[in-house]
Amino acid sequence: MQEWVKRNQDYTLIDGASQFVIDFAGMNFTAAELKKLEPLVAAAHLEMGKLEAGAIKNADENRKVTHFTDRIGYAASELFAEVQALVEDLHSGALTGDCNKPFEAAVINGIGGSALGPQLMQFALNGPYWNELSENRRRGYLKLYFLDNTDPAGFADVVAAIDPARTLQVVISKSGGTQETKNNLIAMENFYAEHKLDFARHAVAITMRDSELDRHARANSWLKVLEMAESIGGRTSETSIVGHLPAALAGIDFADFLAGACHMDEWTRKPELTANPAYMLAAMWYLAGNGRGDRNMVIVPYSDRLLLLSRYLQQLVMESLGKELDRDGKVVHQGLNVFGNKGGTDAHAFIQQLNDGRDDFFITFIEVLKNAMKLPIRDSLEMGDYLHGFEEGLSAALRKRHRQVISIQIPTVDAYRLGMLIALYERAVAVYAEFININAFHQPGVQAYKLAAKDILALRETLFNRLGELAGFQGTALEIADRLGLGERAVEIGGLLDKAAANGPAIRREYSESRNAWLYRING
Amino acid sequence: MQEWVKRNQDYTLIDGASQFVIDFAGMNFTAAELKKLEPLVAAAHLEMGKLEAGAIKNADENRKVTHFTDRIGYAASELFAEVQALVEDLHSGALTGDCNKPFEAAVINGIGGSALGPQLMQFALNGPYWNELSENRRRGYLKLYFLDNTDPAGFADVVAAIDPARTLQVVISKSGGTQETKNNLIAMENFYAEHKLDFARHAVAITMRDSELDRHARANSWLKVLEMAESIGGRTSETSIVGHLPAALAGIDFADFLAGACHMDEWTRKPELTANPAYMLAAMWYLAGNGRGDRNMVIVPYSDRLLLLSRYLQQLVMESLGKELDRDGKVVHQGLNVFGNKGGTDAHAFIQQLNDGRDDFFITFIEVLKNAMKLPIRDSLEMGDYLHGFEEGLSAALRKRHRQVISIQIPTVDAYRLGMLIALYERAVAVYAEFININAFHQPGVQAYKLAAKDILALRETLFNRLGELAGFQGTALEIADRLGLGERAVEIGGLLDKAAANGPAIRREYSESRNAWLYRING
Repeated sequence: MQEWVKRNQDYTLIDGASQFVIDFAGMNFTAAELKKLEPLVAAAHLEMGKLEAGAIKNADENRKVTHFTDRIGYAASELFAEVQALVEDLHSGALTGDCNKPFEAAVINGIGGSALGPQLMQFALNGPYWNELSENRRRGYLKLYFLDNTDPAGFADVVAAIDPARTLQVVISKSGGTQETKNNLIAMENFYAEHKLDFARHAVAITMRDSELDRHARANSWLKVLEMAESIGGRTSETSIVGHLPAALAGIDFADFLAGACHMDEWTRKPELTANPAYMLAAMWYLAGNGRGDRNMVIVPYSDRLLLLSRYLQQLVMESLGKELDRDGKVVHQGLNVFGNKGGTDAHAFIQQLNDGRDDFFITFIEVLKNAMKLPIRDSLEMGDYLHGFEEGLSAALRKRHRQVISIQIPTVDAYRLGMLIALYERAVAVYAEFININAFHQPGVQAYKLAAKDILALRETLFNRLGELAGFQGTALEIADRLGLGERAVEIGGLLDKAAANGPAIRREYSESRNAWLYRING
Repeated sequence: MQEWVKRNQDYTLIDGASQFVIDFAGMNFTAAELKKLEPLVAAAHLEMGKLEAGAIKNADENRKVTHFTDRIGYAASELFAEVQALVEDLHSGALTGDCNKPFEAAVINGIGGSALGPQLMQFALNGPYWNELSENRRRGYLKLYFLDNTDPAGFADVVAAIDPARTLQVVISKSGGTQETKNNLIAMENFYAEHKLDFARHAVAITMRDSELDRHARANSWLKVLEMAESIGGRTSETSIVGHLPAALAGIDFADFLAGACHMDEWTRKPELTANPAYMLAAMWYLAGNGRGDRNMVIVPYSDRLLLLSRYLQQLVMESLGKELDRDGKVVHQGLNVFGNKGGTDAHAFIQQLNDGRDDFFITFIEVLKNAMKLPIRDSLEMGDYLHGFEEGLSAALRKRHRQVISIQIPTVDAYRLGMLIALYERAVAVYAEFININAFHQPGVQAYKLAAKDILALRETLFNRLGELAGFQGTALEIADRLGLGERAVEIGGLLDKAAANGPAIRREYSESRNAWLYRING
């Protein structure tokens, strides 16, 4: 037998029941290298067992990590039934908002872990044009809009598209204090007040018990407050209530998604490296990147519907693995870069570089076997056959140049397989973190920037409180800063003045050619 | 004066007229390093002059490179007027399709360079929900849909959303032979035939003179055939007819976009490194990545509307710079990875890694000063002030850890500034290519994969022509391949059988637990 055929037999993992296949043959590892990893895998397996048994695996935050286990019982839980009942009431028209019109849309207000999962699922299962379909085509389920930032432009776009009287407002923040989400909430509450609508009759919160959001929602008698577990991190919350409500509102079978995730969990609890796709995946990342992420992970689903998968995995992988310290406090500066969009499109974009340029990556293809539509092109060839040909062709061309390829195959893009994909990567991330001895479940690097942002807003307050002292003055940012005794903050003050000049009459900015600088006039 | 303040003064480039600012102070270079680059910059400047004067800078394809210069005269050209007249006829209802209903939508069928630019512009200037707005809110301009792949699912999603009788079909392929675009065209022609609609009355082509598409469109009397210059590559075609028609159909002021691009071109024709933002940008890429792309370029616009910018630049940069050979034929495996989405959202995702993890990147922020909507949050703080604070905070936190930052500031997301941004990066790419002595204007790496894909489709033909010999047989892919004397192609044959089994009755696939393999039954 040819070596390539043999290698494919040896390193292709197949789950017959789900028709989920993952093939590692295109990665440049040897059997001996794999063998050498076995002690690491055995140790990681032990730790995964402890994690699932309820150990405090997120030590820095003194928390358990329960996303792998909570989903086992979730579909049979009271919370699940409560969500389904809420959706049924919305769907049947039994529950209406202010004005008593039936709901036709929902705005999902959340950021990071509270947005990417719902966005991925909505795009994958309902497609890019769901909101444009007739109510009938939507089977009476809701249109979905996302507020996933704190950009006034994003807010403006959403409110221009919705009818607030017919829109449910879902606010998702685990901690309940996420500033971006809070800003959108405040702006939306104001928007409802301006439209003389009772926001509370449209509002649902998903948050931890007794959080700021929890108290706010209860104090204002929101429609519903749904509790989020402390032990599930944002980026691994898609199989929890965070994924559930948005999906159910858009008519997605979330129980099927959970079943897929749990099915993958069972597969990926196997102890043997070469029988466990998550362990193999983590091993490939480890070997390809020398345990330091020396190669970028390029994710290319040959599927328009899976366009957002790379972005979802980018968060899951990079936020989990990009850490300064290992668990012993040693400085390691770990990480694993993730990017990609979709094939064959990407082959007409960045894949030129992957073929010819820097050999600093490994690529993961995801193929969807079943054609969504029968589209004959030429002879017996359908459109889907070309997509297959392009994927196989690119894979062959890359391997010929010794670039490294992982191939995943699923029969269709459905809730069950999406659950499998997410659960696979969740476990691979947790296992890889064991290999490199880091905590995959915290995000300490975010703290520094939050503090720095607060500092900027505090500086803004100082600046604007004292601007009256300079009424009528015109000068550079440095001159203004110096006058206020804040010379060392001149750069930041310049930024604040730029922002203010663009948004109100207090400051006027003009460019001075001779000084090659902005001059700011402080109005009275 | 503080060093940081001084450094910002020295390395911030300001264009007062457009309020376009780019600040390089956050990059880790010294004045001496910059100085050392001057001969390289002088040489590149000379070459850029030659390029704009009409030299054959794309030597491998024996072509001029005219995207920087063609746009100077484009707005005053006959072609421009022809496009505007066509759009006016569609907009006024003077021109209707079959059934004589006015047009309400357009499908843009193109891939890579023929899709990403129009997608970026549409998203940036009309927002994510343009198609959902009323005709009135769209000022009578058309909804836009994109077919940018050869995935039956993408096609199915588009045709489910449009009314074909009211839809314009724009087919964009420079060579006129791009298979993905051709497939969508064939499928769409069939779709119109099924709906008993005359496709030709809905169809517009953009292609090179005498291409396959040009001949097909003329032979079938399409509404319009618009010519694309041979000397403009797909990934730099956004300021040409390729960007123009889709933008104009959606009511975008393309002349303003061109004016912005030309304004940036003027700025970036300055010979002095520190006065030329494109030269400085290229110099930063060069210094940060040791002239080998050793650092990833992370693009983070603090703007929901600029979400697709990173994807657009990913194509522009990676397809241009990811090359095996330099211009002397030396193997160099060059490249420069690009990824990113949008801030502050990304701060809740992968930016944990940028703060704490691998120091293998430099980040480019793009700030939009003017708030799209006034949204008071607390005291004098508006939502936009938070966005500013988050950006400045992240920038400060990253610099504190010696990570490298470039900051761009624009007043608004409009056609003019989008033109400036695109022109800036187009020139930076061309100049960086001069620094590293490669041809930025061809894409030889794509050839290998196209041939390999053709080979797969040929193998498919062989396989299916001969499957009759095996009617009733059940076995593994290897057994089937062996029977056909194609044992060495067993892996590819397995893939073809998987695809076929999912899409028709000819093959049935079932999993054999005992053999840990798929068994395929060949039906008669």
